[in-house]
Amino acid sequence: MRIRIVSPVTMRRAPGVATRSVDDRRQVTVESVTVQAGPATIECEFDEVMAGPDTVARIIEAEHDGCDAVVVNCFADPAVKAGREVVKIPVLGPGESAMHVAAILGQRFSVVTVLESVAPIIENHCRMYGLAEKLASIRWVNIPVLELHGDETRLRVALVEEAAKAIEMDGAHAIVLGCTGMTGLAVEVQEGLRQRGHAGIPVIDPLEAALKLAEALVSLHLSHSKRTYPYPPAKEIVGYNIRPAAVGP
Amino acid sequence: MRIRIVSPVTMRRAPGVATRSVDDRRQVTVESVTVQAGPATIECEFDEVMAGPDTVARIIEAEHDGCDAVVVNCFADPAVKAGREVVKIPVLGPGESAMHVAAILGQRFSVVTVLESVAPIIENHCRMYGLAEKLASIRWVNIPVLELHGDETRLRVALVEEAAKAIEMDGAHAIVLGCTGMTGLAVEVQEGLRQRGHAGIPVIDPLEAALKLAEALVSLHLSHSKRTYPYPPAKEIVGYNIRPAAVGP
Amino acid sequence: MRIRIVSPVTMRRAPGVATRSVDDRRQVTVESVTVQAGPATIECEFDEVMAGPDTVARIIEAEHDGCDAVVVNCFADPAVKAGREVVKIPVLGPGESAMHVAAILGQRFSVVTVLESVAPIIENHCRMYGLAEKLASIRWVNIPVLELHGDETRLRVALVEEAAKAIEMDGAHAIVLGCTGMTGLAVEVQEGLRQRGHAGIPVIDPLEAALKLAEALVSLHLSHSKRTYPYPPAKEIVGYNIRPAAVGP
Amino acid sequence: MRIRIVSPVTMRRAPGVATRSVDDRRQVTVESVTVQAGPATIECEFDEVMAGPDTVARIIEAEHDGCDAVVVNCFADPAVKAGREVVKIPVLGPGESAMHVAAILGQRFSVVTVLESVAPIIENHCRMYGLAEKLASIRWVNIPVLELHGDETRLRVALVEEAAKAIEMDGAHAIVLGCTGMTGLAVEVQEGLRQRGHAGIPVIDPLEAALKLAEALVSLHLSHSKRTYPYPPAKEIVGYNIRPAAVGP
Amino acid sequence: MRIRIVSPVTMRRAPGVATRSVDDRRQVTVESVTVQAGPATIECEFDEVMAGPDTVARIIEAEHDGCDAVVVNCFADPAVKAGREVVKIPVLGPGESAMHVAAILGQRFSVVTVLESVAPIIENHCRMYGLAEKLASIRWVNIPVLELHGDETRLRVALVEEAAKAIEMDGAHAIVLGCTGMTGLAVEVQEGLRQRGHAGIPVIDPLEAALKLAEALVSLHLSHSKRTYPYPPAKEIVGYNIRPAAVGP
Amino acid sequence: MRIRIVSPVTMRRAPGVATRSVDDRRQVTVESVTVQAGPATIECEFDEVMAGPDTVARIIEAEHDGCDAVVVNCFADPAVKAGREVVKIPVLGPGESAMHVAAILGQRFSVVTVLESVAPIIENHCRMYGLAEKLASIRWVNIPVLELHGDETRLRVALVEEAAKAIEMDGAHAIVLGCTGMTGLAVEVQEGLRQRGHAGIPVIDPLEAALKLAEALVSLHLSHSKRTYPYPPAKEIVGYNIRPAAVGP
Repeated sequence: MRIRIVSPVTMRRAPGVATRSVDDRRQVTVESVTVQAGPATIECEFDEVMAGPDTVARIIEAEHDGCDAVVVNCFADPAVKAGREVVKIPVLGPGESAMHVAAILGQRFSVVTVLESVAPIIENHCRMYGLAEKLASIRWVNIPVLELHGDETRLRVALVEEAAKAIEMDGAHAIVLGCTGMTGLAVEVQEGLRQRGHAGIPVIDPLEAALKLAEALVSLHLSHSKRTYPYPPAKEIVGYNIRPAAVGP
Repeated sequence: MRIRIVSPVTMRRAPGVATRSVDDRRQVTVESVTVQAGPATIECEFDEVMAGPDTVARIIEAEHDGCDAVVVNCFADPAVKAGREVVKIPVLGPGESAMHVAAILGQRFSVVTVLESVAPIIENHCRMYGLAEKLASIRWVNIPVLELHGDETRLRVALVEEAAKAIEMDGAHAIVLGCTGMTGLAVEVQEGLRQRGHAGIPVIDPLEAALKLAEALVSLHLSHSKRTYPYPPAKEIVGYNIRPAAVGP
Repeated sequence: MRIRIVSPVTMRRAPGVATRSVDDRRQVTVESVTVQAGPATIECEFDEVMAGPDTVARIIEAEHDGCDAVVVNCFADPAVKAGREVVKIPVLGPGESAMHVAAILGQRFSVVTVLESVAPIIENHCRMYGLAEKLASIRWVNIPVLELHGDETRLRVALVEEAAKAIEMDGAHAIVLGCTGMTGLAVEVQEGLRQRGHAGIPVIDPLEAALKLAEALVSLHLSHSKRTYPYPPAKEIVGYNIRPAAVGP
Repeated sequence: MRIRIVSPVTMRRAPGVATRSVDDRRQVTVESVTVQAGPATIECEFDEVMAGPDTVARIIEAEHDGCDAVVVNCFADPAVKAGREVVKIPVLGPGESAMHVAAILGQRFSVVTVLESVAPIIENHCRMYGLAEKLASIRWVNIPVLELHGDETRLRVALVEEAAKAIEMDGAHAIVLGCTGMTGLAVEVQEGLRQRGHAGIPVIDPLEAALKLAEALVSLHLSHSKRTYPYPPAKEIVGYNIRPAAVGP
Repeated sequence: MRIRIVSPVTMRRAPGVATRSVDDRRQVTVESVTVQAGPATIECEFDEVMAGPDTVARIIEAEHDGCDAVVVNCFADPAVKAGREVVKIPVLGPGESAMHVAAILGQRFSVVTVLESVAPIIENHCRMYGLAEKLASIRWVNIPVLELHGDETRLRVALVEEAAKAIEMDGAHAIVLGCTGMTGLAVEVQEGLRQRGHAGIPVIDPLEAALKLAEALVSLHLSHSKRTYPYPPAKEIVGYNIRPAAVGP
Repeated sequence: MRIRIVSPVTMRRAPGVATRSVDDRRQVTVESVTVQAGPATIECEFDEVMAGPDTVARIIEAEHDGCDAVVVNCFADPAVKAGREVVKIPVLGPGESAMHVAAILGQRFSVVTVLESVAPIIENHCRMYGLAEKLASIRWVNIPVLELHGDETRLRVALVEEAAKAIEMDGAHAIVLGCTGMTGLAVEVQEGLRQRGHAGIPVIDPLEAALKLAEALVSLHLSHSKRTYPYPPAKEIVGYNIRPAAVGP
């Protein structure tokens, strides 16, 4: 099974992603590519729009290369819906995946993201995914994506701080890390919460959640509904060399 | 007052739009531009993604040219949220505008659009705009955008047919035309409904609704909240020559 | 175009309303009348009921006098639905109008009104209009309507104070002034918020919003759905000399 | 215990109501009065507005006369909220009461009312009462209130017909009679449904439901929240001789 | 009229319940039984599951003994839905009953219960009953059920404290006592709130509310919909000697 | 990794379940046990209650035996919430799992279950899980669980028939098989739909979905929130020999 992570941002080290990792035991290969056109990071609607076309191109390419599923490496799930239209294989977004997992694990979840500018995007997506009733709050650490890896201690402390506020003030029962640049920190945040008296609160890493859901869908032989995500009708597209695969069943 | 219509599609005659019209009496100038890169028409999420970057560029340009407001000429409101981030002037989408007007005019409204592939987009937007409770149904005439102007009689008949079904079977009290390619047909559809025994049902032309709302916002000296739509942080964007205006307060 | 403001209260100087103003440039005449029977001000459900019959009478009269639209001059939108039944022309309420404009301008809005007693009315209306998801909170300055004009400085300070709390504590992205007695203060409140570090927050004057929406509807040749607001069936009404116009199409 | 039914309509025989009935066994007296000013029947928003002032006056009078609770005799619950403000005793509306009872008795209920013109009012109330999720549909027999008692067989047949459609087509599990002019027919409609293969479907008489809820509230020593329904502030009311009781705690 | 209270817990003195009380005046007999198998108290989902089978057995028995209605004596409404399936008479839960009464009495209510562990159960039930929009908050006094009667002063003080916070911080307009072990304290809590400046806030005793609703349903000749709660199909049940009555109409 | 399926029913061949299967490649062992006390099948709330206690006992046992996760083998998710309280390992229900997967795969899903009597349970669970907006409809094949395996052709035909109706009449974009007795039929139903012109509609097998989600959670080192599902407080339980593991962190 091959799952490809498509990073929709052009920053050199796309967060949380090695070039290629093989889980020999489970025979799952996770590989990684990055867009060639787009913003350095995604922190607002404008960034999402600029990331869109090349992300879709990379999704088409992934299917063409024989991958079994795609995960778009950004919590804002940019171009995920468009990506589902242009291929047959499952395309997963970390935001949608993590919020569904959180909804299963607890009564209500909070998202802790990078900046306030992302909060309306996340809230709108949560509504669109039909999960608004399960959302306790959206909080942010106020650290831009490009600075996330500069000072990991500061990030960890801020994540625990905001997660604790979500629990104490907003009634959160589970925490979703709201940026894939936070990949790898879920265990530490969970431990930090335990030390502050909040044991047993699941903390969800969105990229990991999306990868596992992708794996689950592939082994269930399921993909997205073609009634929701039909192949785009063939038509002229000026200025881009991106074409969906031959259309149809 | 100058309002600029940005058509996010590259088809030669962007629907419903003269190059420039001046309402001397009310001293409102409505002018029109078209993207140079993007899809011929917008009929799915993929098209919307491909239309995004150049639509944003045209919105930045409109503010730079001294326009007072922008209307994006597509019912799917592509790049409208991103556009609101990059400028100070109001940016209106025909979908959002028409659905709010319909919500004021009647108990429940139906949207009649071109193809089923657009229906999930419209439904998701309606949820995101907070208007889901007012939506009776989404119906479609099953005519692609590029064929809308080929046979206007067929279009008119199909619009009245689906609008009548929305009233009789789905409980609609008002009808929203769900594509700006249908611009100019609202009066005829309303008359067609009257002839079928459905007098007094408002039929809303989305481009016209957006233009009038834009005019209203400009004269109210109101624009979008910069808490919802903050200026994008300055950052590198590879592959596009699009830069938001100097950021700031 | 003639738009008539109907003030549903008998206090001498109905708030925010000159007797007659003509916008020569745009050829819109705004004129104003006041009920002869009803409460001095509207601050609860009881007041709304007492204002109802004569407000409806004034709406019938406005259509008879050749007006193109009516705006009822109270944020609680008293008799607006009944008024829509008895005429063909658009009847707008400042509450409904301002909340829809606010929903378009930002992610979530708060209403700042006069007294707590109005809060359940506003919340119920917001639910009825289908906009509950967009409402962040309702706050009040705790000043009765009759005292609004006694000490404008106190009112302005209180409005900025409550609006700032709505932004900081309730997550509001836009502010709606929740009483037409506050007409004319939107710009000052917006400026007060800017000085407190909340730049870019739209503040909506409800009477102005309703007037502009009325103007938009008239120029769109749209009015309320007669399926939602059918003409009242002819019947005896004891104790009032109010009769809807000859019924029907 | 004395419960007073206030009929908000001036038609001679207010539906379903004897002048006075005493249940000696349970020591509950139910008495009945009718407004002196208002519409013959209530079939739209306009009628509701015209019924308002005198209904409130009769509610004040009922408390003054020593009654323990008031039921307003119309499914549209006219002036019920205003009535709750002006007195301390419970004021019940048949619409609100019956819809809550129906929500307890089954998964989803339908309302069968007189005319389509009442449907938006009922739907809006249902939303306001917070019960929208439990509403399957609103249907109507298309018989005006004044004709309900002319041909009871026609009414009964039509009620069973529409109730059966609500069960078969809309998924209703319980039926609410949507007009107090249908008082006394619940058992017959339930029997009619049973004969059509729909046994075990509760049919709720709204006036009876309101009377029993009123009785329950009185014996529980409960009344409406004065935070929701505070006493109206004292103020001048022109043209009406209606004054709420001395205000305050 | 005979109403039987079924206590689903094995603690010796099931809260708030005498063995038998007869209201001679109103000719209502309220009698009480207790399960023989089950948990001492109900404070979580596990307790609810363990209480289920014998509670259902006692409900079958109540109908067999000729009772007219059953009230299950626990705010978590354990086995209420199953109970409605196995009998024809009304089966009421205190949680559902009290929340509906509270929804009628005020704009929004808070529940004050025993422990945080019950809060998700109550919130889920509130959603299931369709009343989520009316719920302001759930609070707890942090006293286990078995200690409720040890120190009534502590309980009373804590109830007033949390009810006051619900009013001041969560916007509650009415208070529901969230455990039938608090039976009899509503009046004192209401008085305590009055002394803290919150006059006119109804406080609802859930067991009393359920009893009065049961009485109302019996005298209305109404019971639960057999479409929602059909008789269980006959089948083998291993390990329990519980059989629903002969099935069918 | 060991995942245990707990079948909450006593029918000899619990549906869709071999005694033990080892996926050597992925090193996942799936094993299966059955309750010793409870109903033959689960088709209503009563059955669910009777299945509860022994299902919880089997979940405690599974953790004690060293399993990594539990899946309860019934679409009604009986005792799943109670089970989450008594252990630390993830406990999954097929209903909740499949509905979340369906929500990710398409705009709206329908559930096709066995009998109408299960429909309210499923609808209530869907609400409780926060997924009500994504539910298009619930349909049933009208075949009791015990007959599912008697005539598989009849079942397959009926499933395709109802799934097709869900697509054509209710607007479903994905189909969830609503009973774990239908395990193994998803592919055939999907193929049947394709032959009727509905290609690209995912059909979800709920037991398989739950197993894959369980596997995903275990490999993500995630389990349910102990704030939502705290360990039951130690207390006496009469009549059952079921004790949660030593409580606490």
